[in-house]
Amino acid sequence: MTHSTIRTGVFGASGYAGLDLIEILTGHPQVELVFATSGTYAGQPVPGTDLHYIPPAEADLSAVQAVFLALPHKASAPVAARAAAGGVKVLDLSADLRLDSPAVYETWYDTPHPCPELLPVPYGLVEVNRARLAGASMVAVPGCYPTCTLLGLYPLLRDGLLQDGAPVIVDAKSGVSGAGREPKPHTHFVEVFGNFSPYAPGRSHRHVGEIEQEIAKLDASTGPLIFTPHLLPVDRGLMSSIYVTLGTGFTSDEAQALYEQTYAAEPLVRVLPPGQQATLRHVVRNNTCAISLTPVTAQHLHITSVIDNLRKGAAGQAVQNFNLMFGFDETTALL
Amino acid sequence: MTHSTIRTGVFGASGYAGLDLIEILTGHPQVELVFATSGTYAGQPVPGTDLHYIPPAEADLSAVQAVFLALPHKASAPVAARAAAGGVKVLDLSADLRLDSPAVYETWYDTPHPCPELLPVPYGLVEVNRARLAGASMVAVPGCYPTCTLLGLYPLLRDGLLQDGAPVIVDAKSGVSGAGREPKPHTHFVEVFGNFSPYAPGRSHRHVGEIEQEIAKLDASTGPLIFTPHLLPVDRGLMSSIYVTLGTGFTSDEAQALYEQTYAAEPLVRVLPPGQQATLRHVVRNNTCAISLTPVTAQHLHITSVIDNLRKGAAGQAVQNFNLMFGFDETTALL
Amino acid sequence: MTHSTIRTGVFGASGYAGLDLIEILTGHPQVELVFATSGTYAGQPVPGTDLHYIPPAEADLSAVQAVFLALPHKASAPVAARAAAGGVKVLDLSADLRLDSPAVYETWYDTPHPCPELLPVPYGLVEVNRARLAGASMVAVPGCYPTCTLLGLYPLLRDGLLQDGAPVIVDAKSGVSGAGREPKPHTHFVEVFGNFSPYAPGRSHRHVGEIEQEIAKLDASTGPLIFTPHLLPVDRGLMSSIYVTLGTGFTSDEAQALYEQTYAAEPLVRVLPPGQQATLRHVVRNNTCAISLTPVTAQHLHITSVIDNLRKGAAGQAVQNFNLMFGFDETTALL
Amino acid sequence: MTHSTIRTGVFGASGYAGLDLIEILTGHPQVELVFATSGTYAGQPVPGTDLHYIPPAEADLSAVQAVFLALPHKASAPVAARAAAGGVKVLDLSADLRLDSPAVYETWYDTPHPCPELLPVPYGLVEVNRARLAGASMVAVPGCYPTCTLLGLYPLLRDGLLQDGAPVIVDAKSGVSGAGREPKPHTHFVEVFGNFSPYAPGRSHRHVGEIEQEIAKLDASTGPLIFTPHLLPVDRGLMSSIYVTLGTGFTSDEAQALYEQTYAAEPLVRVLPPGQQATLRHVVRNNTCAISLTPVTAQHLHITSVIDNLRKGAAGQAVQNFNLMFGFDETTALL
Repeated sequence: MTHSTIRTGVFGASGYAGLDLIEILTGHPQVELVFATSGTYAGQPVPGTDLHYIPPAEADLSAVQAVFLALPHKASAPVAARAAAGGVKVLDLSADLRLDSPAVYETWYDTPHPCPELLPVPYGLVEVNRARLAGASMVAVPGCYPTCTLLGLYPLLRDGLLQDGAPVIVDAKSGVSGAGREPKPHTHFVEVFGNFSPYAPGRSHRHVGEIEQEIAKLDASTGPLIFTPHLLPVDRGLMSSIYVTLGTGFTSDEAQALYEQTYAAEPLVRVLPPGQQATLRHVVRNNTCAISLTPVTAQHLHITSVIDNLRKGAAGQAVQNFNLMFGFDETTALL
Repeated sequence: MTHSTIRTGVFGASGYAGLDLIEILTGHPQVELVFATSGTYAGQPVPGTDLHYIPPAEADLSAVQAVFLALPHKASAPVAARAAAGGVKVLDLSADLRLDSPAVYETWYDTPHPCPELLPVPYGLVEVNRARLAGASMVAVPGCYPTCTLLGLYPLLRDGLLQDGAPVIVDAKSGVSGAGREPKPHTHFVEVFGNFSPYAPGRSHRHVGEIEQEIAKLDASTGPLIFTPHLLPVDRGLMSSIYVTLGTGFTSDEAQALYEQTYAAEPLVRVLPPGQQATLRHVVRNNTCAISLTPVTAQHLHITSVIDNLRKGAAGQAVQNFNLMFGFDETTALL
Repeated sequence: MTHSTIRTGVFGASGYAGLDLIEILTGHPQVELVFATSGTYAGQPVPGTDLHYIPPAEADLSAVQAVFLALPHKASAPVAARAAAGGVKVLDLSADLRLDSPAVYETWYDTPHPCPELLPVPYGLVEVNRARLAGASMVAVPGCYPTCTLLGLYPLLRDGLLQDGAPVIVDAKSGVSGAGREPKPHTHFVEVFGNFSPYAPGRSHRHVGEIEQEIAKLDASTGPLIFTPHLLPVDRGLMSSIYVTLGTGFTSDEAQALYEQTYAAEPLVRVLPPGQQATLRHVVRNNTCAISLTPVTAQHLHITSVIDNLRKGAAGQAVQNFNLMFGFDETTALL
Repeated sequence: MTHSTIRTGVFGASGYAGLDLIEILTGHPQVELVFATSGTYAGQPVPGTDLHYIPPAEADLSAVQAVFLALPHKASAPVAARAAAGGVKVLDLSADLRLDSPAVYETWYDTPHPCPELLPVPYGLVEVNRARLAGASMVAVPGCYPTCTLLGLYPLLRDGLLQDGAPVIVDAKSGVSGAGREPKPHTHFVEVFGNFSPYAPGRSHRHVGEIEQEIAKLDASTGPLIFTPHLLPVDRGLMSSIYVTLGTGFTSDEAQALYEQTYAAEPLVRVLPPGQQATLRHVVRNNTCAISLTPVTAQHLHITSVIDNLRKGAAGQAVQNFNLMFGFDETTALL
């Protein structure tokens, strides 16, 4: 290990996001992986490493400089608090640190926030918040649907180009790994195979709160979010199909140039040329977001934004933040 | 064969819709299948029958009382014309007879209409046009996307409940059989597997013209159709995810009762109870349409409408029309 | 309900085999479905019926003339015993009644047989044992792998055409529904998608005992069974790829005629013509077995036998036995 | 580009093996990719590079030091001959150079060998022929089924441990990319989805000749190969399920140690520990072969060998040979 290596631990390393984290981190030249925890798989080998999973309680926070938390919400914040207290930098992939207000958290997660004193925490959507993330000691890694949706909307929101009060319609689709590794009836192969189904419709999905919070920071006059996620019969990949109404003074045929300009210098966001449509194939197993733009009428724009839910939507974005926090090249281990 | 049997022929019987037609018709007690044509598979056995495919040119129209045409557009209308001239009833599954105006046809299909004298033809969306279809001698069987979308919108359109001029947003998804049986790069297994992709976005899909024509008949003040089809990695099944803005005087929580009432007596349309979401599983390999309704805000309603693209979206609906034309129970061979 | 209707109950009606049973029985003109039990789904509607699932303890055996048991092994035999005691005919889809000897049962299932006094029970492989099944009061419905494998071997075994002592090699593949509806790590969509994996190799699968028992009844000089099941990334369908060595006096090119002759009158077994290979597509969602034969060398024959694991491999075969037991046409509700 | 970079061209770079080649070579530090040919996609960008596909006729052999040929058989050998004449090293992924004898080639490929003067060429199964491949100027990269099957058999063949004359039974399964990128009826998504099918059974597959040639070099007393390939509903991955009879003096429980010892120093072959079964998941998208061993009886051994058909079965193995030919670390760009 070189002088500049960061001793790193991963909590929740046997879930799907955790497994991708391990895969990325083992290829990261500045990371020394010290431990990986798993309640379910403790004692078993950690794929691609010489480690074995340890129970979370056995993880020694004093042995690391950074931790990734791929834990369920509510379990994550207390670990974040302990790590922070010990001077360990924290990348939290759970929902615990994403909402700025404990009250809003309780609304969406039906439970008091476990550590309200931690809030607010910088929101790790790098392309939007880069300045606030460089050198941060704790970051809330965004959810998969919020990442994909917000990157698809960002240039319009930043420049205030949406019609005031008009709804933002997001018809979203996710691969099954987004539902977690624990077996459940709706993730049984037989239930998913040959099927396609909406779930959590009508503003009931927990990511609605997170997306609306971030939209409001960029443009408070945006209308309501109409968000319907669907379960796709694929293992990974996520698409947000976004339908927006533009305000006066900006027409849909100007969007291509705006997006190309906005993301020109971004290594992990790719605006496709006119006429090409973003598909899961563009992003599965890589760490980028791809966006295509379709003017429908002068006033109506259709945006397709895609990510790998486990990469740019979870583990990849977490490592992108890690690189920023420690001053490494932002794309280290990600391209 | 009994007295009341209808001697029937099928053109284009080796495509995916044609194969489903054969399967349904062989179980229909009032149908005697006389011939099945196929250019590609001539000479080979017709599955589930004692027939062999014959080339279209060898089909004897004088031997039948009804023909189903599962042919490509442009090839279909001339056969329809010949059949009609001989007093044979016609169920055309192609696009040739769906648009009332030859000029509109030419706009969408980039070719002059092959038989403009046939237009207009009754549009075989039974739940909407039943009165005009009973006893008809020629029917244009609706396209798959139009069927699914129009059934999802019908109660609102009929009663004029949409906000005037507001766009109707349809994010649609279809299984691969919708792309036809002829092998093409985008239907190769490797290209579809694990992928999900939009195609023909931005009002470029040919079904836009058909859907808008029928919408306008029901409510001429409806806004533009914003329609994006996607290719799903499944063999069959089609979903229209419809997002609409309601006019004043009607709120989204009234929609459930309206739809239940509208479709109460319909044997092939099923309105799901509140809280259940329509999925492909509800309709694959049957001849029904399933619809679920989600009030999002008072003014915004999300409608999920699903069909099997080869059944209610093609072969099943064709037989439903056939039953009507000949005075049989409308659901014969369909339940 | 007509005079000749059989009042019937189904135990374990919410598992995958149970659901197919319900679907078949609701289309059976001589069946009145009286109850359907489910521990997990009690209170919920039984698909396609007016019934609701009841807990097994609430099932009234005195109200029925026949019961289908789609229960886990060990739970099934006691219900069979109670039903039989009350004069109710029993079709047991579990493994409890398939092995003639309690000792052999204990060897394979690691538990004493729950009701050894019931053994032996007629083995419901209709094409082999039809005479013993007509009018029987209790039948052990064969397992999915045994059904597919034994039908693929039967003509050779019956006529003693295999080389004495030569191993019978069966490389088998099953869709995921064969693993049951209860969610488990290895049936999670993400684990199965894009994968293919052997399991229970090396004569460790419990169906080895059942297959060898039935082989021995037909030809006691057959060599050991080498059996490897694999999990296929499909929902249903099962293939046994069988490799055998023929004895002297019979060559592989004679097999086609032998099989065609053996199964000529069988409505639910289809021997494919030379050159065609049996595939899952031949049998999925129907109640038949399809077999293709490939002579490899004069002495070596490759047999491909396919079934739908939930149909001919479970529910379909159970109803075929039911029809025999009650004197109905054997294929009622099955074609 | 550094001093030691090899100027390299790829013929047939738009097929599935060609695309994987491009992906691997663009990550290879000693490769300068000079051109990539494609008849179908000429003019389009080569993924992950700054190049555009050129027609094969425009490829300048004088500009390169090495060429990979991912061309159809018969088209490949003439290019190999021209390249060799110009001193360019050749890695041929087609079947043209794999069979040592033109007569045997004609038997299996139904056409005279296009360049018999080139034969024989070193057979690029590195783990078996490494000595002959280091520094070679032309290599026949083995087929996918032969690679997987021969690596699964090698330790037994090398040590003469199979029973003389006993058949070697290989039940093989391949993902659809093995059938090539050109759309054909049997690779249509709808035909493959939910299906599983044998093809080219009974020693009719062209790889039988290649496998038997290589088996005979290692142990001429081996019995006939009984080989049945199947089409799996996955995009990539290949399994050979191998059933062998051992000779006297060696029992199946000794196989684990033999294989572990044989492959201990091999970076791209992994013998799984006892009790673990090789699955597609072990190898998809990597360049290794994984093998598991199951003793069935003392005399009968079941071997499961898996590769990614496009990696260790094509592009990965080609680059492994390239590394050997040019004296680079054998695993460069492959781990």
